[in-house]
Amino acid sequence: MKNSPVLYKNLRNYAKTDFYPFHMPGHKRRMQWAGASSFPNPYEIDITEIEGFDNLHHPEGIIRESMDWAASLYGAHKTYYLINGSSSGILSAVSGTVPDSGTILISRNCHKSVYHGIYLKSLKSEYIYPQYSEEYGIQCGLDPEEIELMLKKNRDISAVLMVSPTYDGIVSDVKAVSEICHKNHIPLIVDEAHGAHFRYGDIFPVPALESGADVVIQSVHKTLPCFTQSALLHLREGYIDTEKIERYLQIYQSSSPSYVLMAGIERGLLWMEQEEGREKMKEFSASLRKLRQDLKNMRNLKIPGREIVGTKNIFDLDISKIIISVKGTDITGPRLAERLRNEYHLEMEMWTEDYVTAITTVMDTKEGLNRLREGLLTIDRELKPSEIPESVYPRSWKSRPAVTIHEAWNRSSEQVPLRQSRGRISAEFLYLYPPGIPLIAPGELITEEIIETVMRYKEERLPVQGLKDRTTETISVLSP
Amino acid sequence: MKNSPVLYKNLRNYAKTDFYPFHMPGHKRRMQWAGASSFPNPYEIDITEIEGFDNLHHPEGIIRESMDWAASLYGAHKTYYLINGSSSGILSAVSGTVPDSGTILISRNCHKSVYHGIYLKSLKSEYIYPQYSEEYGIQCGLDPEEIELMLKKNRDISAVLMVSPTYDGIVSDVKAVSEICHKNHIPLIVDEAHGAHFRYGDIFPVPALESGADVVIQSVHKTLPCFTQSALLHLREGYIDTEKIERYLQIYQSSSPSYVLMAGIERGLLWMEQEEGREKMKEFSASLRKLRQDLKNMRNLKIPGREIVGTKNIFDLDISKIIISVKGTDITGPRLAERLRNEYHLEMEMWTEDYVTAITTVMDTKEGLNRLREGLLTIDRELKPSEIPESVYPRSWKSRPAVTIHEAWNRSSEQVPLRQSRGRISAEFLYLYPPGIPLIAPGELITEEIIETVMRYKEERLPVQGLKDRTTETISVLSP
Repeated sequence: MKNSPVLYKNLRNYAKTDFYPFHMPGHKRRMQWAGASSFPNPYEIDITEIEGFDNLHHPEGIIRESMDWAASLYGAHKTYYLINGSSSGILSAVSGTVPDSGTILISRNCHKSVYHGIYLKSLKSEYIYPQYSEEYGIQCGLDPEEIELMLKKNRDISAVLMVSPTYDGIVSDVKAVSEICHKNHIPLIVDEAHGAHFRYGDIFPVPALESGADVVIQSVHKTLPCFTQSALLHLREGYIDTEKIERYLQIYQSSSPSYVLMAGIERGLLWMEQEEGREKMKEFSASLRKLRQDLKNMRNLKIPGREIVGTKNIFDLDISKIIISVKGTDITGPRLAERLRNEYHLEMEMWTEDYVTAITTVMDTKEGLNRLREGLLTIDRELKPSEIPESVYPRSWKSRPAVTIHEAWNRSSEQVPLRQSRGRISAEFLYLYPPGIPLIAPGELITEEIIETVMRYKEERLPVQGLKDRTTETISVLSP
Repeated sequence: MKNSPVLYKNLRNYAKTDFYPFHMPGHKRRMQWAGASSFPNPYEIDITEIEGFDNLHHPEGIIRESMDWAASLYGAHKTYYLINGSSSGILSAVSGTVPDSGTILISRNCHKSVYHGIYLKSLKSEYIYPQYSEEYGIQCGLDPEEIELMLKKNRDISAVLMVSPTYDGIVSDVKAVSEICHKNHIPLIVDEAHGAHFRYGDIFPVPALESGADVVIQSVHKTLPCFTQSALLHLREGYIDTEKIERYLQIYQSSSPSYVLMAGIERGLLWMEQEEGREKMKEFSASLRKLRQDLKNMRNLKIPGREIVGTKNIFDLDISKIIISVKGTDITGPRLAERLRNEYHLEMEMWTEDYVTAITTVMDTKEGLNRLREGLLTIDRELKPSEIPESVYPRSWKSRPAVTIHEAWNRSSEQVPLRQSRGRISAEFLYLYPPGIPLIAPGELITEEIIETVMRYKEERLPVQGLKDRTTETISVLSP
């Protein structure tokens, strides 16, 4: 018998510390709001599909009514509660809109679940690439015209899938893209995992559903006060086969869905709709504006704000995502995150070599936001411009697919040292997690840029994941 | 705006009633045990993959240790915590052991998730059928020799998947089947969703893993004190590709797994291992034996006990599942469940026309078991033998696949009245839920038996599900 495990124990202990989350879930582990303070012991309401409690997979009673209510809030024809995260919604959207072995056009900066959907249904994928901001080191928006051109060139494309907002809050012109898709009689799927809160404040961008998207997936756990792993899928009728998407929702989600997770979705949305939620959202909007104002004049760290809207295909910006760019300074993203953790007990959502992302939500407290402000202002004063001239390594490139993901994962493979893998075809994914966007997908050519990037990431202790070989010394490639 | 939804409200209200669960989850909504009584407000421990808390999809820290600990308990080479139910484990096992378009041999009384896996990977399926007990109206065990014969006849079979125990607690000879599989160099997958508790008591059958199964999926939420939607997948190395199964576990499960669900698994197992759990299990075993003894001499209702072991390929029986057969009496399954609900506030797990199933677990109280005893004894005294001679309609038949599920779901279909669908090929599933075992799967021929059965089920108000047409007046069939 091994030693007793400590997952539960560590979770309890962590809850007692003063560590403050600038990461998901959106409820920020706060207890002082009606949704949480009165929430029962979860065992008490953890039931199964008994008389009177409906069935998520065949909703005809209170779950149906609850989802219809959510649809009316978001302006969807139909809304589904997801208890297997946005991942299950993405898989269902991809599987339900593109025929087997068909073609889908996706923005290359999508979450790995999109690639999983492509693999499961043996799809061919075409990519569009976001622009890149050298100034902040972030990926920016998508060019609708480029999408139009792709659709003209490839008549086999059955659906377009784009991520908007990105993990960093960058919103593309969904309206323009949806019009282009509909002109081509195909649906637009928007991974709006990070935008479930858009409809709750004037300071946020227009939601994708209002901009004409046909399928929209939102992680309510990311930016609203709902439990981790809970999400929504919204449908607009016209360009999609509702029945087919429902088929896949049944396939990709447990036949024993958690009533705690479902109740958590309803509870979170209901609170947002009520007096308390609306009031808090107003307060939060004001605090957020003030925070951004106060951080505007840092000498070294830079936080992109609304001034970037209109450049690089950035249609709008979710200002609740705080991107703290370290470019041109003598600190790296991982090191900044580490200092904020160690010195201020602030845990960030994500970091890359060039920036750190903090997620703020309606649940943030003044104290929490102040701590972030103080932390950043203090650290900023201690930083200096980088003395090392910025290296010319590329931060952004076009991937070079050689075979489909499906083919790559079905062919025989071998392990080779990463450093010697140039020119080989990858047999696996490689990504930073978070955000979980593949640097390379199975079937893509391994280039010098990728090898160098991974080497650099490892040096900087960024969370490189996906490889079988967890030391990341070797990579799996297709056998010759 | 629609009226406020009531899912959460109704769950809270239900928790305050005296309704007693003879259904999942295994914790039975009890608060008086260390696992639940000290469980924090779930928002407090609902975190994401932050520093020190590992990542379910790339476990290297406390989640890895917790799962390794679980593996050591169950005697597995590897154990995975599942946060998308046994469904996700089944999908992963099917996808990870059979090549695309390959062949799998399954017992026909499998859960719909098995059929979903077959669909997703375009598999061909061969069926074996459990025997049927006319006496109790239940499906019984599988014949290992029949499996051996099937494997001899069809050399393309890449894996065998069987359900044991069944929803009703019937255990087949897993050891014999695993030996046959291994002689044929293929793995055996056992859907042991209802058997996670087997290792915790001498009164229970031998677990599938100990009997040589290669992949075993267990719903810890069904019979152990864990949250709904949580499950385990155990692997035994030798006949499987671990890496491939892990690939699919990542695909079919949210990339934002719930720490509340994961902690609930660890907490439930840990409690079972400790003094309190062991003590309770002893008490429960004694209570269960007594209950069965007391119910042995009912005049009308019959509860199959260990006397059925050895007949009809029943290798063993999980006595914690109480099957209350109404055969030969003047009450139906649905009516018995209704009386137990209305008159005794006892909610059953499942009912068919011929029997009612009560799930008992270590969390059952003496009071609860007594109420079931009193209810059954009282109702039994009021029943009479049925005066209507038992109709000769078939309760069990062999399905007649015409095309694969994949082909059926990809061809064009049309709606026809169910009554006139004989001889057509179904384009959809049809099942009672629970248990979720398909009466007919896409691609199977619709026979008179099926039409009659569904008509009868509807009359008896059994939970017929799966059809697009929720009135079940019409069925979707392949277009000619």
